[in-house]
Amino acid sequence: MKSGDASKHEIERIISFIEKSVQELGSLGAVIGISGGIDSAVSVALAAKALGKRNVLGLLLPERDTPRKAINDALSVCKQLDISCSKISVTAAIRALGAYKLQPPARLFPGVVQRSFVRKKWAEYAERDDPFLMDLLDRGDERFRRGLAFYRAKNRIRMCRLYLEAETRGYAVVGATNKTEYLTGLYVKWGDEAVDIEPILHLLKTEVLKIARELNLPDVVIQKAPSADLIPGLIDQDTLGLDYNELDEAITRIEDGYATEEEPYKRLKKILSAASRRRMKALNLLSET
Amino acid sequence: MKSGDASKHEIERIISFIEKSVQELGSLGAVIGISGGIDSAVSVALAAKALGKRNVLGLLLPERDTPRKAINDALSVCKQLDISCSKISVTAAIRALGAYKLQPPARLFPGVVQRSFVRKKWAEYAERDDPFLMDLLDRGDERFRRGLAFYRAKNRIRMCRLYLEAETRGYAVVGATNKTEYLTGLYVKWGDEAVDIEPILHLLKTEVLKIARELNLPDVVIQKAPSADLIPGLIDQDTLGLDYNELDEAITRIEDGYATEEEPYKRLKKILSAASRRRMKALNLLSET
Repeated sequence: MKSGDASKHEIERIISFIEKSVQELGSLGAVIGISGGIDSAVSVALAAKALGKRNVLGLLLPERDTPRKAINDALSVCKQLDISCSKISVTAAIRALGAYKLQPPARLFPGVVQRSFVRKKWAEYAERDDPFLMDLLDRGDERFRRGLAFYRAKNRIRMCRLYLEAETRGYAVVGATNKTEYLTGLYVKWGDEAVDIEPILHLLKTEVLKIARELNLPDVVIQKAPSADLIPGLIDQDTLGLDYNELDEAITRIEDGYATEEEPYKRLKKILSAASRRRMKALNLLSET
Repeated sequence: MKSGDASKHEIERIISFIEKSVQELGSLGAVIGISGGIDSAVSVALAAKALGKRNVLGLLLPERDTPRKAINDALSVCKQLDISCSKISVTAAIRALGAYKLQPPARLFPGVVQRSFVRKKWAEYAERDDPFLMDLLDRGDERFRRGLAFYRAKNRIRMCRLYLEAETRGYAVVGATNKTEYLTGLYVKWGDEAVDIEPILHLLKTEVLKIARELNLPDVVIQKAPSADLIPGLIDQDTLGLDYNELDEAITRIEDGYATEEEPYKRLKKILSAASRRRMKALNLLSET
């Protein structure tokens, strides 16, 4: 089967999955948070095909530190797909929660300065330790912990706003986490992973990219450097030290049992295991009784 | 074994479970939301025994509609256990999120009027339908849905505030959901159930009560009518139509296979099955590949 045919088949499969899930939940439609990245673009495009454009709402939830480009890209996605979209700032809610006190506003500085500052800070930690693993394991000194609490709170407030909209309308919340992110822990517990339906959770990032091309999504979205949009200025390649082609290949080798004990597999195995432990919320006695 | 001995044994078991879980997570302590109800009082009392008073923080998170009595009762719990506690209003965050727009403030009316109004509204729905099941299944007309979105948003904002505090300190979030609530769906998805450790998830409400007595918790807390504090004025007996003794007995009969197809088992089985379906978030293709 040609690659294009495989993507077409996968697209059909996901469309019927979304249709079935929404029916089972008894929802009247779907709400999706649109970040301007490729994953939410693919999710919303597939949801629109499954449920009809009129039953899908794209929510743009910018906050103090959201780059203007992300908003514009998100608007391009909604425009090209011709779906309703609503832009609702969550800045006031994040401020009222007390999260902005933890980090100074990046906006006072030009984008280039912001990115270089964030990368420099990250590199400082990387010299002594593995900041990505520290994050997964909730370790680190006070300054590092403040950073974690900060970006996670922003992400969770978005979840609250998505559900407020969805539940008022009787809609389901559709997620956009892919398999690469899920396995490596590139998401926020009780934040962007807290949804009703995950249509692309079984697809590696490189597979999401193929589907995005097949769906003719806007070039600005397809060509953007993947970023979890968690720490401003930090793209996924910085945090993981591998690009997505390398990462997906390494994950596949580990899954298939062909990985050696050398790098990059050694560190990646640690990451996969820490991420898997974090998913097991259920540290409870219920299952033991 | 006498009932008191059984409770003592259970207390020891939970204490070592909390200790072990916090160690495995690598947390420096625990944060618990204190509502003034019996479940969070038991959870925080056991956490203080497991981790030491100094490593436990009780958070009181009142909002616009929180009765003063709930705050006072929560303060009594922290005082009697001699643990640090912090009172942080989440009203501003809930307002900024847009949730208060969905319901008028109850505070303008005296408590008796509030409770009778809420019960009357609930009874109106109960005449035509089963509002508790409608809630579990995310059904209902627009007014009903606005009510759902409203109380759930409040609950989720509390979760955000708890994690902000916990992650800044490197603490774990300890929950207070009991087995009766868990099985009947008396919690908010991605709200109060979104925690790191659930120390009393395996205990029925009547078992939590026994432990509360064994721990000598304040009388005001033990003697209070159980309420999920989700819809102001509505206690659990109103929403479920059974008191906790009847409910726990019925759940046990269903679990042991001794329940008939008559009431109250017929309706309760529907509730347990709807609640169980709601817990299966993972409507995703990951497991199928």
